[in-house]
Amino acid sequence: MKAVRLHEYGLRPRVEEVPEPEIRAPFDVVVRIGGAGLCRTDLHIVEGQWAEKSHVALPYTLGHENAGWVHAVGSAVEHVQPGDPVILHPLVTCGFCRACRAGDDVHCEASSFPGIDADGGMAGQLRTSARSVVKLAPGTAPASVAALADAGLTAYHAVKKALPLLYPGSTCVVMGAGGLGHLGVQCLRATSATRIIVLDPNEAALALTAGWGADETIVVDGRHVDRVLELTDGRGAEVVLDFVGEKGAERDSWNMTRRAGSDFVIGYGGTVDVPTIDVISTERNIVGNLVGTYNDLVELMALNAAGKVTMLTHTYELDAVNEAMDDLEAGRLRGRGILVPGS
Amino acid sequence: MKAVRLHEYGLRPRVEEVPEPEIRAPFDVVVRIGGAGLCRTDLHIVEGQWAEKSHVALPYTLGHENAGWVHAVGSAVEHVQPGDPVILHPLVTCGFCRACRAGDDVHCEASSFPGIDADGGMAGQLRTSARSVVKLAPGTAPASVAALADAGLTAYHAVKKALPLLYPGSTCVVMGAGGLGHLGVQCLRATSATRIIVLDPNEAALALTAGWGADETIVVDGRHVDRVLELTDGRGAEVVLDFVGEKGAERDSWNMTRRAGSDFVIGYGGTVDVPTIDVISTERNIVGNLVGTYNDLVELMALNAAGKVTMLTHTYELDAVNEAMDDLEAGRLRGRGILVPGS
Amino acid sequence: MKAVRLHEYGLRPRVEEVPEPEIRAPFDVVVRIGGAGLCRTDLHIVEGQWAEKSHVALPYTLGHENAGWVHAVGSAVEHVQPGDPVILHPLVTCGFCRACRAGDDVHCEASSFPGIDADGGMAGQLRTSARSVVKLAPGTAPASVAALADAGLTAYHAVKKALPLLYPGSTCVVMGAGGLGHLGVQCLRATSATRIIVLDPNEAALALTAGWGADETIVVDGRHVDRVLELTDGRGAEVVLDFVGEKGAERDSWNMTRRAGSDFVIGYGGTVDVPTIDVISTERNIVGNLVGTYNDLVELMALNAAGKVTMLTHTYELDAVNEAMDDLEAGRLRGRGILVPGS
Amino acid sequence: MKAVRLHEYGLRPRVEEVPEPEIRAPFDVVVRIGGAGLCRTDLHIVEGQWAEKSHVALPYTLGHENAGWVHAVGSAVEHVQPGDPVILHPLVTCGFCRACRAGDDVHCEASSFPGIDADGGMAGQLRTSARSVVKLAPGTAPASVAALADAGLTAYHAVKKALPLLYPGSTCVVMGAGGLGHLGVQCLRATSATRIIVLDPNEAALALTAGWGADETIVVDGRHVDRVLELTDGRGAEVVLDFVGEKGAERDSWNMTRRAGSDFVIGYGGTVDVPTIDVISTERNIVGNLVGTYNDLVELMALNAAGKVTMLTHTYELDAVNEAMDDLEAGRLRGRGILVPGS
Repeated sequence: MKAVRLHEYGLRPRVEEVPEPEIRAPFDVVVRIGGAGLCRTDLHIVEGQWAEKSHVALPYTLGHENAGWVHAVGSAVEHVQPGDPVILHPLVTCGFCRACRAGDDVHCEASSFPGIDADGGMAGQLRTSARSVVKLAPGTAPASVAALADAGLTAYHAVKKALPLLYPGSTCVVMGAGGLGHLGVQCLRATSATRIIVLDPNEAALALTAGWGADETIVVDGRHVDRVLELTDGRGAEVVLDFVGEKGAERDSWNMTRRAGSDFVIGYGGTVDVPTIDVISTERNIVGNLVGTYNDLVELMALNAAGKVTMLTHTYELDAVNEAMDDLEAGRLRGRGILVPGS
Repeated sequence: MKAVRLHEYGLRPRVEEVPEPEIRAPFDVVVRIGGAGLCRTDLHIVEGQWAEKSHVALPYTLGHENAGWVHAVGSAVEHVQPGDPVILHPLVTCGFCRACRAGDDVHCEASSFPGIDADGGMAGQLRTSARSVVKLAPGTAPASVAALADAGLTAYHAVKKALPLLYPGSTCVVMGAGGLGHLGVQCLRATSATRIIVLDPNEAALALTAGWGADETIVVDGRHVDRVLELTDGRGAEVVLDFVGEKGAERDSWNMTRRAGSDFVIGYGGTVDVPTIDVISTERNIVGNLVGTYNDLVELMALNAAGKVTMLTHTYELDAVNEAMDDLEAGRLRGRGILVPGS
Repeated sequence: MKAVRLHEYGLRPRVEEVPEPEIRAPFDVVVRIGGAGLCRTDLHIVEGQWAEKSHVALPYTLGHENAGWVHAVGSAVEHVQPGDPVILHPLVTCGFCRACRAGDDVHCEASSFPGIDADGGMAGQLRTSARSVVKLAPGTAPASVAALADAGLTAYHAVKKALPLLYPGSTCVVMGAGGLGHLGVQCLRATSATRIIVLDPNEAALALTAGWGADETIVVDGRHVDRVLELTDGRGAEVVLDFVGEKGAERDSWNMTRRAGSDFVIGYGGTVDVPTIDVISTERNIVGNLVGTYNDLVELMALNAAGKVTMLTHTYELDAVNEAMDDLEAGRLRGRGILVPGS
Repeated sequence: MKAVRLHEYGLRPRVEEVPEPEIRAPFDVVVRIGGAGLCRTDLHIVEGQWAEKSHVALPYTLGHENAGWVHAVGSAVEHVQPGDPVILHPLVTCGFCRACRAGDDVHCEASSFPGIDADGGMAGQLRTSARSVVKLAPGTAPASVAALADAGLTAYHAVKKALPLLYPGSTCVVMGAGGLGHLGVQCLRATSATRIIVLDPNEAALALTAGWGADETIVVDGRHVDRVLELTDGRGAEVVLDFVGEKGAERDSWNMTRRAGSDFVIGYGGTVDVPTIDVISTERNIVGNLVGTYNDLVELMALNAAGKVTMLTHTYELDAVNEAMDDLEAGRLRGRGILVPGS
């Protein structure tokens, strides 16, 4: 089968023939890929930014946002069968540690992450575990949802954690109207009646947000924090979802969070730098967020099947991976790039 | 001023002249009534069903769903002033007991309930407390929201308690598409992505529910419990909101609740009668629900101001109270009857 | 190996030789039994009360409260190895359904229950799953904790669910000072500062409860509900843990529950029979409780290892099972009977 | 009456005669002081560190940890009467804003803080509000609990927020064994079964902590973070309560917090400085904490009345305030200094 293989950091991956994965353990599942999302993290991997964290041995296959059809299953697998359309939870988890048993499988003590530290889904097939496959609703095309496996899951997980704080009459600031922010707004609109204020430097991106359910939009222009304070009687928002996490967004997010409110860090790159007296005198919280659980992904697929959370995608053939990467790097890509292996 | 006064149980109330209420305590507020909702409970009061519970001395003024404009305030009142449009939380609470301080003011240890155990709002004016007035958004007509003060608040409170159980992909059964159920569906739709199944014996009532946000409707015809089980893979719903609570609905509601699910009792009249082995072997819960808190009412007004929860109303002049009661008793009243005192 | 086999309902089980269980699936674990608790449920099984629910084929081996040492493991088991001392979660769960993934494995959609619907642990060995074994702290004798696997787990699970309601200054009524109540009081004392009031008809049982951490004891004598109301300013308790669930305890428990409080049903046999107007006018809840999760059992073992929750036990050799059953039936058994297979 | 008056920042306060406070509003309460706690914050006020925040007009009376007996009440006060022994919640709150109604009165939108921005309790009498007085259990001496009004309340509030995370088998690190840490350990022990590890540079302070309920103690010596990691299988603690918040404790606390864990900031002075990638890749939280609510104080008094949380105090006559301040500054004060006005 064909696969997008990274041979050396700093050089673009190559599409080449590799053997198909085989079932090796009783709960293994091999999935025929219907679509693999291309993400900015893939560019970072190619640049070598993840080398130290992932310790993956080169060459290996990229692709951490995957959906397709079950192709083969191990001897102990009972709840899916060949032909089932599925989306893949990004982690392969153990199922035995406290975190896995407590509904918090992202913190599994023995997980792997295909596409990051093992062969991923930019290929004809991918081997994963029975614990990681979520069946799709009849009629859902795998390629249309693949990118929800990571970007969508991350946005949904953060929104879900914030919901208990978002009573009608509250305000939620969404920092960033890009790939994640756009999903975050849809998730918020589907599951709450909070007032949604979206911030972004890009006016064109903001212009689209009313359609996703935003109530107010503010251009990031240096006066944006004051604008949010004006809209909230000088108090700030109960929740800020910071999908940027760098270049000053992390500081602005804190400053737009009201007393007793919570600043959800989702994007990254910058630094949280806050005097402890500010933390305690206002009793504000900084909340970490990491991908989402298997059950979160099932819930997100329910939202997608109901038409409440969707993604704009642009498909490429697997062979065109570098063209897709060029488009992503150059900012030419509207929506998510999805690589689709030929049949 | 004119007031709807009940002189004797079993006899209809009379509209007569009474003195206007005066400010007597530092936190008193006198409200000029813009609309007072007429509710089935008013009929029950007239019949004498509440005599033993309320211990109210006759004659007194009916009306427990009230909205209007602040007319006069006590010496210590600072957060509202004459002319402010307001809706009234149905209870007058103390503000000092643990319940009041814990956001659970419905369980205040020293409350009164105008229209039930004190003079109510079917009158030109009503005396309440500064703790009970919720300011309305600019442009909201008091008569359009008066009935949300009790019926709407009860529905919203139950929905709010149920929300943590209603993840995307879950099912919520709404038992009863009448005055409360109709509000419950709107509250659910505005604040969750759960699948909403509404049950009612009346097909015409069901026909309206799609507009409120229901996903499925089922006629109560003896096969309705089986229909819900079919729609839920034989398991039942995570939450049943039983707005009926009598005539078999209370039994059906329990039977439509899945393992580890919760049956919310909101309507009343019947009896919950369940073997303890059924309670424990399925770990189901029966959840009591009573009106809602002051903050709940503020949140409901935010939903109303955003156009997400509205009521169909039919206004009558105060003098026409008995005509309104006739219409309600005879089932001729579409929506809620609202009594509006002349200026 | 020897095993306690039930051949016919209504007749006592026989101790006889059966083949040792074998590893059949990749996550199977065979445990050499160190102790198997004898429980009133075993008597009910013998009498045939569970025949219709369990559908088990006779003959089979009793014993649903088990601890011992890992004897053999399937090919995919990594987190335990032969020789490890373990206690067994009573259910064998699938690990793939929403409930298993959400930390709610008691509601697994495909579980079995050794000792109830499959061969249990009153035997030299038992086959279970890698998902069901909890490693014991070094130095813990399996026989000393076996009965915590079910009775202890049930008590702990209910207490854990009640904890958010049990602030300092609150009252928790424990209905029943028997096997479960005794564990419930210890769990409450270890994890909360609530005032604990224990009720039981048996004064000798009550006399022991101060040592477990009870603050007050009340003899069930017909005036006991009034006594609880007197101790709670006429209001009742925030939480009632009803470990009895029959013979009037289920009615008394409801009547001792205060406004906005919760009545936890744990024991069974009787019927909850409450007018819906009482449910709603006081906003009380009836909470079902069923065994506990795997993580609950891990937590209970932490309490045991810290000396905070222990059990009085009386050991019998496996051959003496019918003597043990006689003692249990006749009320001669102080503490739990534990059957220990010879080496 | 005598009062400890601050006339100029940088100069010690003077004890002088001032008029007794009078009832001015219907819910005012004048309390005869039984004891006023002396706190490091009082030293900071004298130094002028709070001048910009409090905007208080000099001269004014110090003392923000107060207990005594009700002396006089306003016309609308019903739930306390002259002679009642009381402890004072440190804030005077409005009772009408969302925060006050939601059980979160520390975030009242219109509060004052006697001893900080209004006349405090180092005096014969203090005027406060009916909303701020908590009745003491019979037999409790006001002077023995005065310092729980602020230091104790802060520790209890943080512990209460952490409790849902502190299951049996979890670890809670308490950073700092001083005035707050000592109370935090007692609150943890009374309300949880978590393993408590206390850190402090002072070995003598650590030596006392076993009596309060600590399980492990570690000297802050540069290897202390590693020691905590060793005790937690390299993972860190589910919760760190940082009662120090400066001088590196704020950095160490974050580093001792495990994946998905929470770092509670309570002490202050330093800066939280964490890369957003560390926040998200481990999904850790930073939780602000500020004093506690009125209901928290009622609960803390229940713990005190039950003998579960107590304080070591050293009493001084009001005239000796500067001697007490000298002792506090010089580190000669064991336990809290309590100023007691003569009769």
